[in-house]
Amino acid sequence: MKMPAPLPADLSTPYVAVDLDVLDRNLRAMAASAAARGIALRPHAKTHKCLQIARRQIDLGAVGLTVATVSEAEVFAKAGFTDLFIAYPVWASPARTARLRALAEQVSLRVGVDSAEGAQALAAAVKGTGVEVLVEIDSGHHRSGVQPGSAGEVASAAALAGLQVSGVFTFPGHGYGPGRRDKAAADEADALDQAASALRAVGVDATVRSGGSTPTASVADPGSLTEMRPGVYVFGDAQQVELGSCDWPDVALTIAATVVSGSGSRVILDAGSKVLGADQPAWATGGGRLPDHPDAHIIALSEHHATAVFPQDAPVPGRGDIVRVAPSHVCSAVNLADELVVVSKGREIDRWAVAARGANT
Amino acid sequence: MKMPAPLPADLSTPYVAVDLDVLDRNLRAMAASAAARGIALRPHAKTHKCLQIARRQIDLGAVGLTVATVSEAEVFAKAGFTDLFIAYPVWASPARTARLRALAEQVSLRVGVDSAEGAQALAAAVKGTGVEVLVEIDSGHHRSGVQPGSAGEVASAAALAGLQVSGVFTFPGHGYGPGRRDKAAADEADALDQAASALRAVGVDATVRSGGSTPTASVADPGSLTEMRPGVYVFGDAQQVELGSCDWPDVALTIAATVVSGSGSRVILDAGSKVLGADQPAWATGGGRLPDHPDAHIIALSEHHATAVFPQDAPVPGRGDIVRVAPSHVCSAVNLADELVVVSKGREIDRWAVAARGANT
Repeated sequence: MKMPAPLPADLSTPYVAVDLDVLDRNLRAMAASAAARGIALRPHAKTHKCLQIARRQIDLGAVGLTVATVSEAEVFAKAGFTDLFIAYPVWASPARTARLRALAEQVSLRVGVDSAEGAQALAAAVKGTGVEVLVEIDSGHHRSGVQPGSAGEVASAAALAGLQVSGVFTFPGHGYGPGRRDKAAADEADALDQAASALRAVGVDATVRSGGSTPTASVADPGSLTEMRPGVYVFGDAQQVELGSCDWPDVALTIAATVVSGSGSRVILDAGSKVLGADQPAWATGGGRLPDHPDAHIIALSEHHATAVFPQDAPVPGRGDIVRVAPSHVCSAVNLADELVVVSKGREIDRWAVAARGANT
Repeated sequence: MKMPAPLPADLSTPYVAVDLDVLDRNLRAMAASAAARGIALRPHAKTHKCLQIARRQIDLGAVGLTVATVSEAEVFAKAGFTDLFIAYPVWASPARTARLRALAEQVSLRVGVDSAEGAQALAAAVKGTGVEVLVEIDSGHHRSGVQPGSAGEVASAAALAGLQVSGVFTFPGHGYGPGRRDKAAADEADALDQAASALRAVGVDATVRSGGSTPTASVADPGSLTEMRPGVYVFGDAQQVELGSCDWPDVALTIAATVVSGSGSRVILDAGSKVLGADQPAWATGGGRLPDHPDAHIIALSEHHATAVFPQDAPVPGRGDIVRVAPSHVCSAVNLADELVVVSKGREIDRWAVAARGANT
């Protein structure tokens, strides 16, 4: 696989560039992989927050979009997307009631719940609107979600409160670590199976069993999952390369940065945590990587500086040179940018707004 | 000192709240502290990126503003601020030339340089516009900047290229660590003194010797510094409290978050790294703190979840409760928000745009 061309040099750095050819290849590959296994693809739009990319995903067969927040759902609903799942235990506060009802009238809406109280608050807000709920299960990531065996209690409470329960979902986030993919995918399948049984035991049919993350998507089990929700696969990032989910030529989004300082094998770039994001798991080798210099590492990030160290005797870019930086976690980088510079064969061909940037509520 | 009142409950969470009374107290205290020592205050606007706060700083006697990027300078220049220092070794690429010239015509502009090549590129862009340059010195943070003894070479190159050299600056960022404040402030003073001597040796008078960070501001030495550039002091944050620069009642900016999940002493909040930022130094106790529950710790952050752990047997907020979260590093949190909700005595009284949000170029 060929590496993408260098980025345009006539823009002020740092800027966020998306290689359209790589992006389209990633979108087609995931769509084909899901279709081949008969798993519905409902990509997580929190990664790109971008209408143009969501449209391409739907055109390639995605059944709908996943979002993380009510405000992300509002952005995509307003743009004409009709099938949205808020994969989060949304708390239906009074401030959110009118917003949730308006959404429910506009689109086919699914919402996550992980407690009887959450279900009751949601029912008070949206009962009668046709909103479906999925019970969130903890498959090993230990964040939100109930234990699989407790899914029936939440489903019962939701049904009793008047909500339509359609199934269960989980995020196997504990697959984010080297060598953890297969175990996390197996945990995910087991947890969804157990939770589906727990729902059947209280008379609820789990027609939707939704899982999936980018690291586990390639091994998601169609015997247990009816749907998967990977997000990062559209762009890739330094984490995904270090996890083995993709390789450098698959990284579609990079940040163009200029060398502004440094000496010897130590180079200071004008892209810091305010454009790359500071998300960096303990197992990552640094705060981002340089796809065209895979032996270099970013050993420190401050708000407007990245300190990259090159191997001794390796050629080092000089002051004024522009390099491509793959952020550690691309979802964080996109959420810092107002727009993406779309490039093809090294030329700018479009700009796409990050329409749902900052949509956290 | 009394803690601020709880935050308004009628808004969808998460949102970024600024307590105006605490903010004004912080602004006045730093202005008085600088004035008492005869050190000019040029606060770093990258922390707040907000016109209303910059205006208050100038009204309280600040000599001008510090910014990190040309695009931040453009935002403040457009809003009528007339004295700006870009404390960064700006690379004057062709894409930045017209922007720098336009700025120089609009305001009194200072720019950082830390190399002969950088000075030559800058001179080619702005010679004849009256831009002043300050040579950046490494006082121990080891990021950008030259060693103090080499400041003369950069100053000479800049002067030879036709630039007006007015002095030297440094950022004692190595003071960001428990117990490191006094050593960093001493390093800063030494480095500025040495660099000023190095400039005199090549016939340049360092009339400006600029340093300062929030941790070191209280001990900055007026014998060595003519100016200081703290930023974070306006808001405070979890890092500053853990460093001892301020205490919980001094934290003016907090994020309102709702408890959405959890069990026992483990509480899941709807404020994750996309609103709090993920900046977290190795010595910090977690990804933010809860000022009203100082014994709780945020042990994990994902994009839309914070996992807070409370001491065994401590009262724990329940689902639907709103809590205040102090981000680990407030500069990162502000740069994620489009607006700040200004509160006083627990009521919303205004909204301020984060005018320079995302201004990285």
